[in-house]
Amino acid sequence: MKQAIIVRTDLNMGTGKIAAQSCHASLEAYKKTNIVKKKLWELGGTKKVILKIGSEQELRILLEKCRKQNLSCAIIKDAGRTQLKPGTTTALGIGPDSEEKIDAVTGHLKLF
Amino acid sequence: MKQAIIVRTDLNMGTGKIAAQSCHASLEAYKKTNIVKKKLWELGGTKKVILKIGSEQELRILLEKCRKQNLSCAIIKDAGRTQLKPGTTTALGIGPDSEEKIDAVTGHLKLF
Repeated sequence: MKQAIIVRTDLNMGTGKIAAQSCHASLEAYKKTNIVKKKLWELGGTKKVILKIGSEQELRILLEKCRKQNLSCAIIKDAGRTQLKPGTTTALGIGPDSEEKIDAVTGHLKLF
Repeated sequence: MKQAIIVRTDLNMGTGKIAAQSCHASLEAYKKTNIVKKKLWELGGTKKVILKIGSEQELRILLEKCRKQNLSCAIIKDAGRTQLKPGTTTALGIGPDSEEKIDAVTGHLKLF
């Protein structure tokens, strides 16, 4: 079991901003996951991988793939109070779910 | 209400590693927080701040302060499979709790 956090690299976010958006994505995707998957993931040590994606369009395509596969997922939009325009999508949290299911949709992405 | 994520800067972690450790800290501190504080925080938009800390010793001192103030907190140790030695403390999640209570212990730290 693992959780994948996908973060846009084309927004030139600073490290703290990337970390904060990742936290939003992780927590919101976790909340949408059923209790059995949560528990299995916790037993395995709550593995998380942070992956890069290069554009809003790629992020939207990935979100659609996740929905088709019934993966729990959460797309994060920035409130726009600091570095970005309001409503900018910044990150996507997927799972936790089985590594196979997550890899099937994210296998083409590189580790951050 | 806000949640503070404190990350060590002396370990030379890469951006993805920082984001992953932040996610661990955010989720584990969230789980330790009571339901009323969780709900108040969610109503306010789940504000998260990522802060820097320069050493293990400072992180331990901060953890003690949090415990004395009855702030929910979670210290994160790295499994050491990649960049760090096993058991290295990397991050601390605090809250969510009132901004005042969080600022009282973290006010001296700079934003990441």
